Amino acid sequence: MIYDTISTPRMVVNPGIVKSNIRRIYERCLNSGVHFRPHFKTHQSKHIGRWFRDEGIESIAVSSVAMARYFASDGWKDITVAFPYNPREHSEADALSRAVSLTLTVPSPESAQILASKTESRLSVMIKIDTGYNRSGTRWDNLNDIKGIIDIINTNPLLTVKGLLTHAGDTYKASSPSQAMERYNISVSRMNQVRDSLARPELVISVGDTPSASLFSGYTDIDELRAGNFVFYDLMQLVIGSCSFNDIAAVMVCPVVDVRYRENSVVIYGGAVHLSKDYLLIDGNPVYGLIVRLTETGWISHDKPIYLSSLSQEHGIINIDNGNCSDFKTGELVGVIPVHSCLAADLAGSYLLTDGTTADHLSGSHKWAQGE
Amino acid sequence: MIYDTISTPRMVVNPGIVKSNIRRIYERCLNSGVHFRPHFKTHQSKHIGRWFRDEGIESIAVSSVAMARYFASDGWKDITVAFPYNPREHSEADALSRAVSLTLTVPSPESAQILASKTESRLSVMIKIDTGYNRSGTRWDNLNDIKGIIDIINTNPLLTVKGLLTHAGDTYKASSPSQAMERYNISVSRMNQVRDSLARPELVISVGDTPSASLFSGYTDIDELRAGNFVFYDLMQLVIGSCSFNDIAAVMVCPVVDVRYRENSVVIYGGAVHLSKDYLLIDGNPVYGLIVRLTETGWISHDKPIYLSSLSQEHGIINIDNGNCSDFKTGELVGVIPVHSCLAADLAGSYLLTDGTTADHLSGSHKWAQGE
Repeated sequence: MIYDTISTPRMVVNPGIVKSNIRRIYERCLNSGVHFRPHFKTHQSKHIGRWFRDEGIESIAVSSVAMARYFASDGWKDITVAFPYNPREHSEADALSRAVSLTLTVPSPESAQILASKTESRLSVMIKIDTGYNRSGTRWDNLNDIKGIIDIINTNPLLTVKGLLTHAGDTYKASSPSQAMERYNISVSRMNQVRDSLARPELVISVGDTPSASLFSGYTDIDELRAGNFVFYDLMQLVIGSCSFNDIAAVMVCPVVDVRYRENSVVIYGGAVHLSKDYLLIDGNPVYGLIVRLTETGWISHDKPIYLSSLSQEHGIINIDNGNCSDFKTGELVGVIPVHSCLAADLAGSYLLTDGTTADHLSGSHKWAQGE
Repeated sequence: MIYDTISTPRMVVNPGIVKSNIRRIYERCLNSGVHFRPHFKTHQSKHIGRWFRDEGIESIAVSSVAMARYFASDGWKDITVAFPYNPREHSEADALSRAVSLTLTVPSPESAQILASKTESRLSVMIKIDTGYNRSGTRWDNLNDIKGIIDIINTNPLLTVKGLLTHAGDTYKASSPSQAMERYNISVSRMNQVRDSLARPELVISVGDTPSASLFSGYTDIDELRAGNFVFYDLMQLVIGSCSFNDIAAVMVCPVVDVRYRENSVVIYGGAVHLSKDYLLIDGNPVYGLIVRLTETGWISHDKPIYLSSLSQEHGIINIDNGNCSDFKTGELVGVIPVHSCLAADLAGSYLLTDGTTADHLSGSHKWAQGE
């Protein structure tokens, strides 16, 4: 069995599912005439990145300069850092922009000012628009500041304003597909409102949330899609309804270390440092993952859902509702579908693939620019 | 300023505060005749470990075999893995036990059976007792199974039962010092009840939660203290009342990337992948960290507490209550006292010390036994 070598928590990825998730979204983009710029912050793997390239995809989004550098070193030439410009990493961004076509994201006039004053090599700029999620960027209805950002960027001839970028992050909190789609539609309509008001039809509208990317069978009124999580999906997306169980491509495989027959609970080696503390409320109870049964070639669901109900640093606790712990045995393995695969993958180190090979993951020492 | 080199989120540690936190707890142990076995899972640093050794401390607790190996490679000879025995790592534990005095923790008869059947080199065993926290181990009132574990362990002459180990983890959920102490007292009294019933006075009673270790000025009715978080403390401990602001030794230093004057919020580069998603409820609102002002030599509190109010993968959002964002500027740095320093440190990579030097942290490639 592929899992035989696993002795500590390990993220296992099914390449077939990943590839079909990629194709599904990419085909919709092609059919809609929308540019696909997948967000690589979920998998953070050169190996998995190549599966995108095999499909003909050439541009990507990342969430840090270190991540941009990681993928640039594997031949990616068109990279957007879809995170507010960090002036303290300007020289790293500058160095990278000499090797690849780099796009940075500017959230405010203040940020634009710093970028314009520091830039000494060619860079493209996306303006971060807040369409209501209220996380970062300039609000869609603050046209004055949006124009201000463009004017400031234009003072430096090395900079080019390429478009408007938003993240409709409230779709992740949607309780139903229709609510997610409604929120997304509001976001896209506000983005178009901004572009119309600017009378700059050449500006690219870029959006990037997995729920709407998954729920729509085609994309209208946008130019670029930056979704990322769809590569693996996770329990959150399953609950929203943006994927089916069979679309989930990643499970954390964890050793069972204590079966508590009297207390109807099972302790696994798999805690917050492996899965993250992201949780969902299901029937009013916090849920940190969905337990699955491992098979020779992958994983299948239990007849009745079994959840990971609490986490500490290394412990994960499964409460067994029906009083039957006999599915679990100390020393054996269980699979956990993470609540949020982006965070679990970030913690995971390299991946074991269900074909028995492995795939890299951007390591801590890359992620932390100052290193050891 | 020591922070000048920081361009991405970075954990900064004040060695003076760490050393005084170590001394305070160690002196109480010495005065109480209690053996101090600090838990190194919080700092996971050889460099910081040496500050303990400088005080004369020679034994430690860790939470994984990989962590045991990391510290063994720095000369630690007496190591307890205070996490339920993982049969799948038996050969790694076995190899290590030939080099150091290694103690494993057994939570159940099933676990004892596997350990007894696999062990081929000398190992000590602590029995994991659940005194009411209901996470793992055998319940204090299930004397039958506790005796069963001892009998099974004794079938293998290479194994020695050393004592009883518990973690009164419910003290971390205490809303006041008196509640934490009350919970701790119940736990210790149950441990003594077990030992008395076994009529094995030579068995060591080992406990290890930071709230009680900090709140008591001396320790009675225990033999060994395994606290760990006290080395840094954090916002959770501050709220419980087990430390003062000046005892907190670690802050995550994060760049400001977006100041939203109209929305009264500030976006920092510092998210779930840097701080973890652990949170506290303060006045009914989730809090992911306490914002501090950086000084030449360390950090100071704001006059009125300012909290990190939400986190996504890389973004941290500070809501500014009083409508004054002028304390913050894009491109500058802020400090964040993490809610849970163990998890933030686990994510942090190496530390920057306030004396300008750095300290190592067990890296991902060590933590994940299967590596890249």
